[in-house]
Amino acid sequence: MKKVNNIAVLTSGGDAPGMNAAIRAVVRAGIYHHLNVYGVMYGYKGMLTNDIFPMESKTVANIIQRGGTILKTARCKEFYEPEGRKKAYENLKKLDIDGLVVIGGDGSFKGAQKFSEEFDIPCIGLPGTIDKDIAGTDFTIGFDTAVNTAVDAIDKIRDTADAHDRLFIIEVMGRDAGYIALHSGIATGAEHVLMPERKSEIDDIINELQANERRKKLVNLIVVAEGDEFGGANGVVKHIKERLPQLDTRVCILGHIQRGGTPTCMDRIIASRLGYAAVEALLDGTHNVMVGVVNDKIAYTPLTQAVKAKQSIDEEWFKIIKILAS
Amino acid sequence: MKKVNNIAVLTSGGDAPGMNAAIRAVVRAGIYHHLNVYGVMYGYKGMLTNDIFPMESKTVANIIQRGGTILKTARCKEFYEPEGRKKAYENLKKLDIDGLVVIGGDGSFKGAQKFSEEFDIPCIGLPGTIDKDIAGTDFTIGFDTAVNTAVDAIDKIRDTADAHDRLFIIEVMGRDAGYIALHSGIATGAEHVLMPERKSEIDDIINELQANERRKKLVNLIVVAEGDEFGGANGVVKHIKERLPQLDTRVCILGHIQRGGTPTCMDRIIASRLGYAAVEALLDGTHNVMVGVVNDKIAYTPLTQAVKAKQSIDEEWFKIIKILAS
Amino acid sequence: MKKVNNIAVLTSGGDAPGMNAAIRAVVRAGIYHHLNVYGVMYGYKGMLTNDIFPMESKTVANIIQRGGTILKTARCKEFYEPEGRKKAYENLKKLDIDGLVVIGGDGSFKGAQKFSEEFDIPCIGLPGTIDKDIAGTDFTIGFDTAVNTAVDAIDKIRDTADAHDRLFIIEVMGRDAGYIALHSGIATGAEHVLMPERKSEIDDIINELQANERRKKLVNLIVVAEGDEFGGANGVVKHIKERLPQLDTRVCILGHIQRGGTPTCMDRIIASRLGYAAVEALLDGTHNVMVGVVNDKIAYTPLTQAVKAKQSIDEEWFKIIKILAS
Amino acid sequence: MKKVNNIAVLTSGGDAPGMNAAIRAVVRAGIYHHLNVYGVMYGYKGMLTNDIFPMESKTVANIIQRGGTILKTARCKEFYEPEGRKKAYENLKKLDIDGLVVIGGDGSFKGAQKFSEEFDIPCIGLPGTIDKDIAGTDFTIGFDTAVNTAVDAIDKIRDTADAHDRLFIIEVMGRDAGYIALHSGIATGAEHVLMPERKSEIDDIINELQANERRKKLVNLIVVAEGDEFGGANGVVKHIKERLPQLDTRVCILGHIQRGGTPTCMDRIIASRLGYAAVEALLDGTHNVMVGVVNDKIAYTPLTQAVKAKQSIDEEWFKIIKILAS
Repeated sequence: MKKVNNIAVLTSGGDAPGMNAAIRAVVRAGIYHHLNVYGVMYGYKGMLTNDIFPMESKTVANIIQRGGTILKTARCKEFYEPEGRKKAYENLKKLDIDGLVVIGGDGSFKGAQKFSEEFDIPCIGLPGTIDKDIAGTDFTIGFDTAVNTAVDAIDKIRDTADAHDRLFIIEVMGRDAGYIALHSGIATGAEHVLMPERKSEIDDIINELQANERRKKLVNLIVVAEGDEFGGANGVVKHIKERLPQLDTRVCILGHIQRGGTPTCMDRIIASRLGYAAVEALLDGTHNVMVGVVNDKIAYTPLTQAVKAKQSIDEEWFKIIKILAS
Repeated sequence: MKKVNNIAVLTSGGDAPGMNAAIRAVVRAGIYHHLNVYGVMYGYKGMLTNDIFPMESKTVANIIQRGGTILKTARCKEFYEPEGRKKAYENLKKLDIDGLVVIGGDGSFKGAQKFSEEFDIPCIGLPGTIDKDIAGTDFTIGFDTAVNTAVDAIDKIRDTADAHDRLFIIEVMGRDAGYIALHSGIATGAEHVLMPERKSEIDDIINELQANERRKKLVNLIVVAEGDEFGGANGVVKHIKERLPQLDTRVCILGHIQRGGTPTCMDRIIASRLGYAAVEALLDGTHNVMVGVVNDKIAYTPLTQAVKAKQSIDEEWFKIIKILAS
Repeated sequence: MKKVNNIAVLTSGGDAPGMNAAIRAVVRAGIYHHLNVYGVMYGYKGMLTNDIFPMESKTVANIIQRGGTILKTARCKEFYEPEGRKKAYENLKKLDIDGLVVIGGDGSFKGAQKFSEEFDIPCIGLPGTIDKDIAGTDFTIGFDTAVNTAVDAIDKIRDTADAHDRLFIIEVMGRDAGYIALHSGIATGAEHVLMPERKSEIDDIINELQANERRKKLVNLIVVAEGDEFGGANGVVKHIKERLPQLDTRVCILGHIQRGGTPTCMDRIIASRLGYAAVEALLDGTHNVMVGVVNDKIAYTPLTQAVKAKQSIDEEWFKIIKILAS
Repeated sequence: MKKVNNIAVLTSGGDAPGMNAAIRAVVRAGIYHHLNVYGVMYGYKGMLTNDIFPMESKTVANIIQRGGTILKTARCKEFYEPEGRKKAYENLKKLDIDGLVVIGGDGSFKGAQKFSEEFDIPCIGLPGTIDKDIAGTDFTIGFDTAVNTAVDAIDKIRDTADAHDRLFIIEVMGRDAGYIALHSGIATGAEHVLMPERKSEIDDIINELQANERRKKLVNLIVVAEGDEFGGANGVVKHIKERLPQLDTRVCILGHIQRGGTPTCMDRIIASRLGYAAVEALLDGTHNVMVGVVNDKIAYTPLTQAVKAKQSIDEEWFKIIKILAS
């Protein structure tokens, strides 16, 4: 087992609430184990531009509750080229860094995996994405906060839907994954949830809205993931306005508010636990894995397999949505 | 002075947080003074459709903290025709209603004013609108909540703006009035606030963004009222992307979340105070006025004058925004 | 399998956020399956006083987001006597009720279990308690909300602790169970978490506070469950003030705010899922069980075993707390 | 008029949400006017210990939304002695500081006033206290946030009060001033509000609780300021339990959560405006005043008069409370 002495941590891809809690955990667990911990700014980009600095325990004080990421994040095309990765490696080597923790989504893991294949710096991935669509973990850092932000926003919209007897079509984030839509839809009592993983029958929706109209149920919420087949809320509303022009229908696209904000208790705990486990993994010589949580236990998934998960959403949830919204 | 015995209350126009607190105050102050209090559903529409019901103290229990309006609201074109108002009058007369409290914006007040001119039912208006653009009052029911909702959302967006070094153009509500934009912009440290009451120089904004770019200040927030001359956030972003394509720029339209939610302390207090004062005014024979608050004192404004206020925003605020965002 | 036709639902014991979401789910799932659903007010007490009423789909509209319980709750000593249960049974029989859903904690389940032994009315228990201390389920309705409320409060206290360089001893709920303390302590970066399930060494705590003082770390948070061996926060502070009188130490007892408030997304989903599953269980003839969730699957536990769980908290959490707070 | 070149800013006394927004405004307005701005840590104490550092625009980036104070605060007895002030003066003089902005309450203003009498450093006070009890201003930095925090907490408690038909006695902050109690009490529909400025008749309260009990109104909220004549909530509950032992009565002391948290929109705006005005005042040669807001205009009050205001609370508020809670 190779001894680890100097590690670096970075955040990559879209930011997610709880990333700061994860950074804090990596830094303090590292220091506890007498490692030097470096922060890399702007994800892989900072590795190329040598934007790397030593972190102390104090550097991560009072950040567990903060949204965003103190290490910032960016997309970095050059890192996906061999020369880019070489340059990155050389910068890390100057500091004798012999372990790297990457907090991000499956795109970021691909980069880490390539890097670790080519160079002798072991990498650990931590799932940080609001979309919860990574194989090998039950939770991702940021999902619980994002979904609670969505629920809070939809609760507010329902007040106004209810005051005006309106139909609202609400778009939540999720280009490839509908988890935010599914969870926020169930939690707000939405009539329908549309998501990329599942074909929705617009005819059924129209028919049901008409049936609701007949029985004077005019307040209706439809939650749509941005990556839904109809093209998000604006796609859905077109169909509905065409066929039910008499309904008072509005669209609301929640957008970027879902990425920010103070992380929930759960996201902070997951982030803390995973950050701690990442350092333990590096010390144990376990590398090139993503550290996740499965059935409340730490689980390691090779970076090659920690890809965007093809989810099979249990069809029973849609039955529950239908029954409970009635 | 005519003795009042039976009063009715309704909410009209766009809903605003705190309307329920105002309804509660009207009902309980009415009952305290031994009046019968009726609720009219769906604004003026309920007067025409005779959707009117007696309210008790209990009817308004546990609603002070609720967004929306338990009396619902709707637009009603027929009320703007003489026959519509006649029908409404007849329905009220069947119940011997001799006083009407209308919670809404300036459009609703116009209806009330016409109605009170034609018929012998005194009306009292209460300013209920998130836009704070009514002459004769320092506050409107709902503004403080809406602006805090906007601030909370922009805080979240700033997390992500900061993580990615992005420019965000955020659209808040306000078709004719920029108060929500102004207040939320100051409170979130926005670089620029664009609003209908004031011409903005897009060239100045572009120049400043360029200057910020040169000094590596890439995180910028611009808050735009929907009724701004450029056509809201989507209008502004077009100009910016054309001339500064290199910036990572995003748009976020906050939308209907600004109308709902639990009212703030201030909105509940104003609503309670105004609802109570509305009943006092009816008992005193003061009628066809809007009851507002000016310099922390109850103020009466004839309904004819309680129109959308032409605001003159103090230019010093824009100096403050510029200086403090630097 | 006995056919079920008329079911009743009640909430019992301490209230918990999400109980309304569970009631809604039971009512609507029941109606979907063509059952008559009755609500019992004030827990078992309403069964004795015959405070029972038919519920419709509309009765539970717009309550998924509300704290508290629309069915109210109470303690009821008489139900723990044979005559009390007999009277309750007779009242249910008058309405031909042949299934009962009890939302509450382990105390309530004991009542349900006794009742179902003596009489031919099958009972289903749903775990509704903020303490998360019931065997047979990974989650209880209300825990996630309570712990987020605690975290939000402690975040606020940290602002003031940090401004004044103070030590705060914060007491959270949990008479027999320390889960709220453990989770909120990790999530807020507390230095120490004291809980009933685990002996804490006051000497170690004192020593560490002294060490922190020497290195000028004066901001410290200690989270204590009310049922801790030292007698909650007031017990702990006595020890500390005696031995470290120079520290600026304050106590904050969070109290009943932890029971109320809008439920989180997770609590609403769990409540919806369990309420739905309770009706399915009654229809399937599965009875006298608690319905819980284990590893994300519905799990049935005989009411006799759904008791307050002896938890064995993984000692590693305390290592994580120590390392991350350093 | 003496030219100002170097100014210092500090926060003193109890912390209040919005202090950071005020610091930010002082720093940036100062820099805009080409002043050097210094931050003093720990209030007056930092002046004595020479804990003073130059602040840049960047130092105050991203703090407008943060509770607490980045300059920390402390009580400092030595500053109330002539030698202490002399030492403080010498430290400021070393840096050629010729203007001082003190953000705090009336106690802090007394120190500033003494200091400015003895030495040639002009002082400006900004009212930063959650208690809103300073003469010469309609608002103080922190009050609006504190009262909204209290309202949010009481809303949660009401959920549980309502579920159990309980009487809750809730203590809010306010040793000498009852504004938090008054505002949060009105906003939550409390039955009674007890505060230091006004004698409450415990007999009337008892009688009313009994009358409520007779008409089955068992959910009651009483809001008490900590400085009330009965000794806060614990004092009040003693009286009630003695005479109405049959009621299910609970106490909740909100405590320090009222000091922290993200400031509301209003507190951020007031803080920004006052911080900006403080620098303008120093530049104009206006000194030894507190800068406040009266009727929405900047107002200057000599520090000698900016004392804890003897408030005369309008008796009509208590009539409103009584009527609306009925």
